[in-house]
Amino acid sequence: MYFASDNSGPVHPQVLEALAEANQGYQMAYGADALMNDVRDKIRALFEAPGAAVYLVATGTAANSLALATLSEPWQTIFCSPVAHIHEDECNAPEFYSGAKLTLVPGGDKMTPAALRQSIAGEETRGVHGPQRGPVSITQVTERGTVYSLDELQALCKVAKEFDLPVHMDGARFTNAMVALGCTPAEMTWKAGVDAVSFGGTKNGLMGVEAVIFFDETRAWEFELRRKRGAHLFSKHRYLSAQMNAYLRDDLWLTSARQANANCVRLAEGLRAAGASFLHDPQANMIFASFPRAQHKDLHAAGAVYHLWGAELEGDDSEEMLACRLVCDWSITNAQIDQFLSLLN
Amino acid sequence: MYFASDNSGPVHPQVLEALAEANQGYQMAYGADALMNDVRDKIRALFEAPGAAVYLVATGTAANSLALATLSEPWQTIFCSPVAHIHEDECNAPEFYSGAKLTLVPGGDKMTPAALRQSIAGEETRGVHGPQRGPVSITQVTERGTVYSLDELQALCKVAKEFDLPVHMDGARFTNAMVALGCTPAEMTWKAGVDAVSFGGTKNGLMGVEAVIFFDETRAWEFELRRKRGAHLFSKHRYLSAQMNAYLRDDLWLTSARQANANCVRLAEGLRAAGASFLHDPQANMIFASFPRAQHKDLHAAGAVYHLWGAELEGDDSEEMLACRLVCDWSITNAQIDQFLSLLN
Amino acid sequence: MYFASDNSGPVHPQVLEALAEANQGYQMAYGADALMNDVRDKIRALFEAPGAAVYLVATGTAANSLALATLSEPWQTIFCSPVAHIHEDECNAPEFYSGAKLTLVPGGDKMTPAALRQSIAGEETRGVHGPQRGPVSITQVTERGTVYSLDELQALCKVAKEFDLPVHMDGARFTNAMVALGCTPAEMTWKAGVDAVSFGGTKNGLMGVEAVIFFDETRAWEFELRRKRGAHLFSKHRYLSAQMNAYLRDDLWLTSARQANANCVRLAEGLRAAGASFLHDPQANMIFASFPRAQHKDLHAAGAVYHLWGAELEGDDSEEMLACRLVCDWSITNAQIDQFLSLLN
Amino acid sequence: MYFASDNSGPVHPQVLEALAEANQGYQMAYGADALMNDVRDKIRALFEAPGAAVYLVATGTAANSLALATLSEPWQTIFCSPVAHIHEDECNAPEFYSGAKLTLVPGGDKMTPAALRQSIAGEETRGVHGPQRGPVSITQVTERGTVYSLDELQALCKVAKEFDLPVHMDGARFTNAMVALGCTPAEMTWKAGVDAVSFGGTKNGLMGVEAVIFFDETRAWEFELRRKRGAHLFSKHRYLSAQMNAYLRDDLWLTSARQANANCVRLAEGLRAAGASFLHDPQANMIFASFPRAQHKDLHAAGAVYHLWGAELEGDDSEEMLACRLVCDWSITNAQIDQFLSLLN
Repeated sequence: MYFASDNSGPVHPQVLEALAEANQGYQMAYGADALMNDVRDKIRALFEAPGAAVYLVATGTAANSLALATLSEPWQTIFCSPVAHIHEDECNAPEFYSGAKLTLVPGGDKMTPAALRQSIAGEETRGVHGPQRGPVSITQVTERGTVYSLDELQALCKVAKEFDLPVHMDGARFTNAMVALGCTPAEMTWKAGVDAVSFGGTKNGLMGVEAVIFFDETRAWEFELRRKRGAHLFSKHRYLSAQMNAYLRDDLWLTSARQANANCVRLAEGLRAAGASFLHDPQANMIFASFPRAQHKDLHAAGAVYHLWGAELEGDDSEEMLACRLVCDWSITNAQIDQFLSLLN
Repeated sequence: MYFASDNSGPVHPQVLEALAEANQGYQMAYGADALMNDVRDKIRALFEAPGAAVYLVATGTAANSLALATLSEPWQTIFCSPVAHIHEDECNAPEFYSGAKLTLVPGGDKMTPAALRQSIAGEETRGVHGPQRGPVSITQVTERGTVYSLDELQALCKVAKEFDLPVHMDGARFTNAMVALGCTPAEMTWKAGVDAVSFGGTKNGLMGVEAVIFFDETRAWEFELRRKRGAHLFSKHRYLSAQMNAYLRDDLWLTSARQANANCVRLAEGLRAAGASFLHDPQANMIFASFPRAQHKDLHAAGAVYHLWGAELEGDDSEEMLACRLVCDWSITNAQIDQFLSLLN
Repeated sequence: MYFASDNSGPVHPQVLEALAEANQGYQMAYGADALMNDVRDKIRALFEAPGAAVYLVATGTAANSLALATLSEPWQTIFCSPVAHIHEDECNAPEFYSGAKLTLVPGGDKMTPAALRQSIAGEETRGVHGPQRGPVSITQVTERGTVYSLDELQALCKVAKEFDLPVHMDGARFTNAMVALGCTPAEMTWKAGVDAVSFGGTKNGLMGVEAVIFFDETRAWEFELRRKRGAHLFSKHRYLSAQMNAYLRDDLWLTSARQANANCVRLAEGLRAAGASFLHDPQANMIFASFPRAQHKDLHAAGAVYHLWGAELEGDDSEEMLACRLVCDWSITNAQIDQFLSLLN
Repeated sequence: MYFASDNSGPVHPQVLEALAEANQGYQMAYGADALMNDVRDKIRALFEAPGAAVYLVATGTAANSLALATLSEPWQTIFCSPVAHIHEDECNAPEFYSGAKLTLVPGGDKMTPAALRQSIAGEETRGVHGPQRGPVSITQVTERGTVYSLDELQALCKVAKEFDLPVHMDGARFTNAMVALGCTPAEMTWKAGVDAVSFGGTKNGLMGVEAVIFFDETRAWEFELRRKRGAHLFSKHRYLSAQMNAYLRDDLWLTSARQANANCVRLAEGLRAAGASFLHDPQANMIFASFPRAQHKDLHAAGAVYHLWGAELEGDDSEEMLACRLVCDWSITNAQIDQFLSLLN
């Protein structure tokens, strides 16, 4: 009963097999391995973007920070949600890499076009004194488990384009969002107006690989230099390629994300049946639910692992409602979910 | 016949097995995995340093840059050899992370105590105008395949201590140097006066893991924050731990390094017998040799892969001596070496 | 009728005289001039802080950025008001110098202790993932022309101290605030809990000099290195010293600030009499007032210079209320004010 | 008898008069003052560069650092002499502003085209691993008091252009070099191939003003943002403009530099007559001379102020030759020089 994070589960067995497969003979280092060509071709095909620049790094923070640094200048701001991972969970890495300031668009998990427009319009009205407008960063799945619809994405990108600003998507849970929407990679990115994507694999069954995709290849060389200067270029790069290659082969990325989302549906339905309420509508693989302290205590006692959300387990009022975050990855079994749910009754 | 780099060969099978072993159930993310405790304990024991701070990152450049940033201030200089990896091969990463300037101590692959003392003495004589003195960084094995003796290391550290400067060791090939010297980890580091080590694993059979070890634990928390801010903290950290754990288990680190060095000896002896000359004395697992263009052409035609060193294969003078770099990792077989050598005759 | 900024008026004649006085013979460069000793002594005496470290720079942004960089680490945040000059008007200079992120404490011109406590408490709850807590920066006079009372300052500093955080005061209009409160420099700074001050002179009659004062001298050398590395150390430093020396001699700083504040009172009273309303209570030398477009048009036609505030002069509705910012420096005359006011009727 | 630096003397009286003149009424802040238009026009005319972008900052280090940051990228190197001011005397400011690494071209005070070509050719041979080639920075007058001829400048710029690299000139003593060569500003800059100049005023009679001139205006806006972000944009900018305006009016820049150089000739001739030898040929306003300790002791006893150069006054051997640096600014009088010289006999 481990719902703490989609970082906590095992790597998908097909990925380990792919690593073993790749572990033959000699390969050029630093991204010149043959497997990387396959990966690049696959991503270009899946995204219907034959001219895209494609790179691999090992952490989501690296993908976001390097992508944003490439899209921005140190005297600019990056527009994002106040709960964006790049703001709350990356210890100033985006600022370190880009030099830019993050402008928090007022609102919740999702930015609205109106709030984004107002934030952008409010900047660059002071000439050289204020920072200048830079990229917009959209988190899809959001950090609250919700998913922007294609219409919502298009509307945000349209606002960015009004001001001629590039758009970045933090897709640490890209595939969970995509299968939730039932759309194509292209529809969720460049067709909606996204210029660069952090295309996550780690949270969806890989060991540690994220692709960074630029639909405009003119930024490719700068990204390569930034990646090396950031110490994120792997010498034995073939093992990153092998993971991403396995991910995109035989629909592993899709089946893993569908499984994770389905696990989440099963869990959410059970929680709802048990009387829990939801802080956000669970649309992908994360649930923010609220139920009585007594139930949390029972779950903890039985070994369930997950994070309380702005709440403390200790306390006397067993009826008090405590919020929590529950995350499902591809590896959670129905049995684990059902065991968890059984403890709520 | 692949002698291009110790980054090009396969990962040791025991490492892949360790990854599979680690791939069970759920683990805390971000370095709180149980395996990391084993790794920390093992490194502290092997280095006879019970209070050492131990961290894992995935690239050598990250290990060096983060360690040096932790040891320095942005208004300081870092003293190193003109051929140090941190100067020539890291695309300004050490400067990016530390803000410091690299001061190149005149000389070749090895710094001498006299040259180091003169470089240090020459700085900080201008008050606030010049940069201030910062850490000394020693590359062991050097970038030319030579190895500092313990006496040489002690003498360099002594100079650093005269000026109260910390010492960093870039040990991307730490174990190759250690087995060449026949000394203990402690003798090659803190007993000689080294304060922090980049303890490499990637070039010696791992997939991509380097430990950073501080013998003075007061720098630990700063390093943790720098690692996260640099986007080098892995969520699924257990797979870094598993690699390093396998490395230090059953003497894998030692046997791999001994094999690589032995391969190098076999290759060097064959080259010598074939009349090649050496630019540097091959003391670990790298050879810088010079022999006629005609032989290089034969080798290339037969599929040998390695880097020419400041030379071009193309040219008419078949007697001209061309230099090259040949690197052996643990996986090179006697058959490959002998095949290579047979082409020289 | 020039109310655009306290940057727009002339330098006080006594300051020019002091520059001429200082223009004799030879002086050590880079802050080792004899006049700087006088300045240091005067500031220590006036602030009742015999151990304070005192430095001069030429711009307010340099004073703020260098002071904050000295008080913070690149993985921290700096707490400030959303309308703080360091956030809105310094083009990311504080981030450039410090590497830290600015956390905007919700609210208006003044931070409240409750909001500050909530902002601070909300951070550093994510271990290494979120940025760490850093200094609190208080703008006195605020960017809306209001002045923190001593009680308010003490309460804010108390919150900072609860979390062991240093406090910086952006005192670009330090003296305007001080004479408005009728307190001593010590009362408005270290006695309230402030650790470092940007003590402005430029907006109060100097040509371009701000002092940075640290009440804890242990940060002195780091500041000196940061100042030089930031290219803010003047070679002909005596001309900075001369200005600051003149400022603190014969109460020039006090009389200039009193005159500016008095000008503001005269202008505000006239505006109130003419029916204007105020967005903020004018407590020092800045007024945010609102009156009909028709009056603005008359003023502009007559040559009055000032900034409209989120409003456009052009428009048909002559009755529409437009906000504006009016700033008085020491040099504004009663005649100019009265001429301005006469146009409102 | 003050020969310590051209930073130590008084400001030219015409400059103080210009400040007083400028001290009338109200002016737009931050570079929008009317005087700046005059300055821009004058510099464009003098440099025969009608499209040049012209900015003012207050320190030479700011001029150099901001110009170089605008010409470079953080993954590049800046080529310069090992004795360049940007390397030895700016406490890592160029690295702070640009992120680039300084590559020291082997040699002395002047770079030779051959050494520069070799340094440039030696870089960017490692793909993404090494830093990339960036701007060349030429110091004119050099830090050893010598002056590049027009032929030498053209030859260096030609090498830079072979590699498509921009050229920066650190002209802290620009006018001293120009009058020594008897050439025009255009000949010493863009006609020779220079792209951007730090056009110094401070060492030649101003209080603290340097112009940065880009002959290609496309970099203008980036420079403006970098200047503000670096905290180098003056609010009361008119007082920078006034200084530079006075400098370029009535040939003050030329007459001051000619006077400084003439002072240097007088001093050098006297030294030569007294038997001193010269470390470098004094071609502008700086002398590096060597004469017996006894004479230095006499001079110090009589109150002469100057820097010994890698030598210590204390010592028994009165016949030992000690080197020193002697700098003349415009304000040194014949009487002072003659008094100094009289002590040598």
